[in-house]
Amino acid sequence: MSLLVIGTLAFDSVETPYDKRDDALGGSATFFAMSARYFSGVRLVGVVGDDFPQSQLADFRQVGIDTEGVEVADGKSFRWAGRYEADWNTRHTLSTDLNVLEHFDPKIPASYRDTEFVFLANTAPAIQAKALDQLPEAKFVVADTMNLWIDIARDDLLALLPRIDGLVLNDEEARMLTGETHLLTAAKKVLELGPKFCVLKKGEHGAFLISNTTRFALPAYPVDRVVDPTGAGDSFAGGFMGYLAAAQNTHPQTLRRAMVYGTVTASHCVESFSIDALAEVGRSQIESRFNELHELIRL
Amino acid sequence: MSLLVIGTLAFDSVETPYDKRDDALGGSATFFAMSARYFSGVRLVGVVGDDFPQSQLADFRQVGIDTEGVEVADGKSFRWAGRYEADWNTRHTLSTDLNVLEHFDPKIPASYRDTEFVFLANTAPAIQAKALDQLPEAKFVVADTMNLWIDIARDDLLALLPRIDGLVLNDEEARMLTGETHLLTAAKKVLELGPKFCVLKKGEHGAFLISNTTRFALPAYPVDRVVDPTGAGDSFAGGFMGYLAAAQNTHPQTLRRAMVYGTVTASHCVESFSIDALAEVGRSQIESRFNELHELIRL
Repeated sequence: MSLLVIGTLAFDSVETPYDKRDDALGGSATFFAMSARYFSGVRLVGVVGDDFPQSQLADFRQVGIDTEGVEVADGKSFRWAGRYEADWNTRHTLSTDLNVLEHFDPKIPASYRDTEFVFLANTAPAIQAKALDQLPEAKFVVADTMNLWIDIARDDLLALLPRIDGLVLNDEEARMLTGETHLLTAAKKVLELGPKFCVLKKGEHGAFLISNTTRFALPAYPVDRVVDPTGAGDSFAGGFMGYLAAAQNTHPQTLRRAMVYGTVTASHCVESFSIDALAEVGRSQIESRFNELHELIRL
Repeated sequence: MSLLVIGTLAFDSVETPYDKRDDALGGSATFFAMSARYFSGVRLVGVVGDDFPQSQLADFRQVGIDTEGVEVADGKSFRWAGRYEADWNTRHTLSTDLNVLEHFDPKIPASYRDTEFVFLANTAPAIQAKALDQLPEAKFVVADTMNLWIDIARDDLLALLPRIDGLVLNDEEARMLTGETHLLTAAKKVLELGPKFCVLKKGEHGAFLISNTTRFALPAYPVDRVVDPTGAGDSFAGGFMGYLAAAQNTHPQTLRRAMVYGTVTASHCVESFSIDALAEVGRSQIESRFNELHELIRL
């Protein structure tokens, strides 16, 4: 079934305690699409500047990512720079240059209008809503958000939540959105705000799915070495949504398997800078980690 | 099969952001025994002062905990006072009065010498070793430790590790013991120090079992409300060891189920101060949470 993501395409400069990489391909839509494409075709909506290499768009198309929805605007692409502490949980944003993103007004191509599975990657809730307005056939919509929007665009976010099926957010964001420190209570409160389910991403501690009828807790895949956690959440969402779109259903049992696939694509993501690992890994390696993770949690 | 614990019996004064309790029954052996007794008889080894109520020892016996190994010494019982921050992960020790614990020299009663399952709860590694010396029939020995001993009694601890089957410790202790920040690497290094398996306790994030042949990751049971996390780790160990002693084997499959039971007894423990919940909950509630947790992780 058709799957669309709207989000950012960026150049990231990342410092870790062990290494660094400048101006590497990043952005929420990039990580999402490079993960989802293992399972499903992906329709990509975003904006880049005239500095964005055409060859990269061709590379996307090569792996099943439709780039018709990528607008090339005059100016520079979005750039982000950050630094991680040794515990990987503390991230410092060093700089954010919105550039072409500043005036981004999403236009969904006519050929995308029949999309049924939609992921609204992290961006301003007003932009997420604008994209959703143009997707009349959307049957299953999941959104991501971040502390910035919870802080400065809370009303827009609250208006969006009843329109979506699922919200993915990290533990800190869940606490911030609901004002609850206890994570389970926070997750329940998210459901009261509109979404039918909520996925709490807890980084190295795994992920937790909650709806009014089901709960599923999953540890992270224990990677031997983390290189760069940037994009892990979007890669999780990509594996999750890609699997659902391919399965063509969203039964609780399918959501559970989708959580495992999302955890697997996130585990590959963090093992390299940028999309290096996601570009190289084959479907058989995805399946192999799926089986390992299944074995890890099997009672 | 016979199960023995050597550890502390104490009076705890605990402050949380929401409530407080003074001079309540605590101690590693107490929490362990009150959890293990759901599954197996427990032989208790420790020391109390002459202020320790005989009625409490009678209560222990009432629920299948043998108190012959509890020495009543002249002086006061061990006392600990602590305060938790709102995130539950930060604990401040306000005072520690060793009292009778200061000169504790464990003596295993003759009737306990045939014990096969042994838990060396958190205490000085030299005392743990002394107890183990007196248990010639011990077949399956698991130990706990803490940052204090890793710091001031590292050699004693390193001498103990090759003598035990399993070590349970929290993530911070694993990092401190091995010098590795990456948790999986730290766990692997623990295995190199002697134990056949290691259980990493991660509090609200669950627990992780690793041996050279198996790995099992389990989330915490999502309790609705935490009242006091004191004793959670010892309650985990109690459910874990109690189930193994009852099952009379330590196959990987049994270890996995034991992890779930340990997680369940820990979940009950944190829902009250002291052993209040552990004293009240029945086996059917334990089984009910076992099933809930199984459902929570079932793929």
